[in-house]
Parts: sequence; structure tokens; C-alpha cells
Amino acid sequence: MIKISIIGAGNVGINMFQTLRKKKDVKIVSMFNRSIEKILGYRNKIFITNDINEIKISDIYIISTNDSSIEKISNKLKGGDGIVVHTSGSTEMKILCIHKNFGVFYPLQTLTKDKLSDFKNIPICIEANNDINTKKLKKLGKIIGSKCYHVDSKQRLALHVAAVFACNFTNYLFSIAYDICTNNKIPFETLFPLIRETLEKIEQNNPYKIQTGPAIRKDLITIKKHLNFIKSKNSKKIYSILTEGIIANNGK
Amino acid sequence: MIKISIIGAGNVGINMFQTLRKKKDVKIVSMFNRSIEKILGYRNKIFITNDINEIKISDIYIISTNDSSIEKISNKLKGGDGIVVHTSGSTEMKILCIHKNFGVFYPLQTLTKDKLSDFKNIPICIEANNDINTKKLKKLGKIIGSKCYHVDSKQRLALHVAAVFACNFTNYLFSIAYDICTNNKIPFETLFPLIRETLEKIEQNNPYKIQTGPAIRKDLITIKKHLNFIKSKNSKKIYSILTEGIIANNGK
Repeated sequence: MIKISIIGAGNVGINMFQTLRKKKDVKIVSMFNRSIEKILGYRNKIFITNDINEIKISDIYIISTNDSSIEKISNKLKGGDGIVVHTSGSTEMKILCIHKNFGVFYPLQTLTKDKLSDFKNIPICIEANNDINTKKLKKLGKIIGSKCYHVDSKQRLALHVAAVFACNFTNYLFSIAYDICTNNKIPFETLFPLIRETLEKIEQNNPYKIQTGPAIRKDLITIKKHLNFIKSKNSKKIYSILTEGIIANNGK
Repeated sequence: MIKISIIGAGNVGINMFQTLRKKKDVKIVSMFNRSIEKILGYRNKIFITNDINEIKISDIYIISTNDSSIEKISNKLKGGDGIVVHTSGSTEMKILCIHKNFGVFYPLQTLTKDKLSDFKNIPICIEANNDINTKKLKKLGKIIGSKCYHVDSKQRLALHVAAVFACNFTNYLFSIAYDICTNNKIPFETLFPLIRETLEKIEQNNPYKIQTGPAIRKDLITIKKHLNFIKSKNSKKIYSILTEGIIANNGK
């Protein structure tokens, strides 16, 4: 039985809690949150606290606060023989090095409290201060059904940056497309088949090799038409820079 | 039986040909391509020509050349009583107005010759010079199994611009993510669950409302870390501009 404490009841913490509490090899012994009001709803299921000294002795302490609080929380936490991990994509592991055992347990997914995610579909990036702890964290990853990757701190930062490009920024481009559609009375769903196809293709190919559109064709007439059409200054700038990038990359 | 000629054996033309030839209500009577060598392989299946005057009398003439050749081809074509259509996202319908019957039959998909697409998953944007022709084009769309949308020339341009943002530019961002992963020895597939989730979410929500990541959180520390990490000047510029855009949009 692995005893676990969850520290920080944000999107990651709550998803971890809801997933782990169903596993028979795991027992969640405490849940900490700075504001107790936010976790009062869990008090019948689990020991809750807003006092870091009350956190119970655990095999693994999962710090799932926002990035800027990790170090402060870690410094106050009595980790003992347990492994203290954080769940952040862009925070180095060594921030936790005051503990005997420490590591990172980073789920690569956009998690929200409202919609619980199935960890089977979430890659977990694992790093630890030694091989024994790596194994223990991999075991936890296996229990929740995730595919685990060993990813060191530099790689994790790289992965986080890549995820920002591939997900956060693409979502923003979808927002711009959404605006253009609704402003012109076109159902946004008209684009879904094309978007799905783009996704299917990159799962099979190096995305560079399947680039389509006016930029890769150096179709300056269409590019000019598009730029004339776009009213938003911001969208115009984004169109220009991404177009220039595609054209420049074509020579690679 | 609808008699059809396909003019231009590029990605769109070949996909149209391969789909239409299987339909019992359609007969393809000619296929034109400027360079006959490229279509010699089809000569046993269909009448092929590189002489525009040899194109046979048809109910619908589908001009699927590149955008810059549409007007020239149209001006030379004897359309007679048939409907002359082009398949371009960013070309106005009126370019074909020398004909008695004309319109647009624009499949909103990235088509490639190597991989034939199922038109059931392709929205067709239709426009014509009168209601009778609109109906005829919708009938053709129905025969190939597509969902048809009535989209005027301004809307079609809007849709094309939206598609560039939602597909061409997102594919380019995937390329950047691909580079970051491979340069850091991380399998690109690690990102697929996150990318799929992003897609699923936008099919249910206004993308603005589900924006995640450091920019929307105004997490300047992470943004700085990411910018320090990115070596490519071009990617750095793109990161900055998209981040600024997300932050600015947040106030909307």
C-alpha cells in the first residue's frame, strides 16, 4: 500500500486525487490546500488540512501547487523518508533537493477540475534523484495506468515549450479562426474535418513534410488577398510572421 | 447522368476524378491537363487531352487548376450550357462570369494525390450564379456524399483565411514542436495525447474559453524560462508574438 499526500488542490491535484483514490494499492492519507474552504467538500473522504505540519507521514508527497509556490512549500514540508515530487513542466527537480528523496511526476496534459481526465491517456514524465525512487515513481505511474517516460529536467523544459507550441498556441490560432468564422456567419464546425485531417497526418509524418497552404507554395497573390481581408492588427501580424516562418523553413 | 469534365489534374482534380468515377449517376467525359504526360496513366479509363478545344460537352466543367490559371483557362473554355465551376478557396466566383452558368465547388480539405480522401468527411462550399445552378451543384455534392454549405465569395475567402490559421499555421507550430522534441531526444508522440485533447475540447467549446498555458496565466517567470530555452530566433519571435496575442485577448 503506497501512502500518498496531495499538496495543492488545483486542477492537477484534484485530478490526481480522484484517480488515485480509486486504486486499491494506494491510500491517500492527506490533502493540503492553503485555503481550506476550497477543499471542505472532501472532508468526508479524506483528511484535509491547511497546516503543512499536519500532513501525515507518506511514501510519496505530491506537490501540485502553482509553480511559484513549489519551493516555499517544499522548504516547509517534512518529507522524512518519503519521496517529495512536484508535478510541474517547467520547474527543475533540484528545487526539491533539501529532501532525502525527491523527484518529478509531471502529467503532460491540460487538466481541469470540471472534467476528470483518464490517466490512461496521459503520459507521465518521471525524474528522480536515484534509480530506486525512479522505479517507485514508475510504479505509481503504472498503477494509475499511464505511459511513463523518463525525462530529465532539461528535457522536461523542452517538452513543456513544445507543448506550448503544439497546444496552447494552436488553441489560440483556433480562437482566431473561430472569430473569423463567426464574424462571417460561417459555422466553426465547417473547419473540423480539415483540423482532424491535419492532426491525423502529423501522427504519421514529420509535420514539415506535410505543410500545405499559400505560404509553402509561395503563393504571394493569395497571401496578399488574405492580408487585405484580415482586419485585426494582431491577427495580421501573426499571419505575416507565421507565413515568413514557413517560407524560410522551406529552404531547410 | 451528369456529364463532367475535369480540368487540371492536380491534387483536387485527381481526388475528384477518383471519387466521381465510382458514382453511377456521373460520367466523366474528359480530363484535361496542360502537361499530357502527367495524365497518360489514365488514358485507358477516360478521354484525356491537353487541348482545351477537345474537352467534350459537359453538364459541369470543374476547373481544378492552380488559382493563377483559372481565369485564363476559363476564358478559353467553351462552357456552352454547362456550369463552369472552380474549386478554389480564395478566388471570387465572378472570375468565371463570361459563361452562361457558373459557380464554385470548393472542397474544404487538404487533398493529396497519394492518399485519396473520403469526400464524406469533406465539407463542400457551394456558390452559383443562380438558384438552379446552386441546386445542381448541391446535387453533385450529395452524390459524392459530402456535406454542402452555401458560402458566398466573401465568406469563402474568410473560410480560407480561417483554414490557414486553423490548419496550415497549426501544422507549422507542430513542426516547431517536432524540432524541439527531436533536438532533445524526446519522442514526438509524447505530445499526441495533449494535442488530441486540445482538439476534442475545441469541438465542444469556444476556443477562447479553454485557453491554457503560461500566457493566459500571465506566468511571466515561465515565459522568460521558455524564451531563454528557445535557441531559434524565428521560434523565439513566434513564441513572443503569440504570447502577447493571448495576453491581449484575455482582456476581451
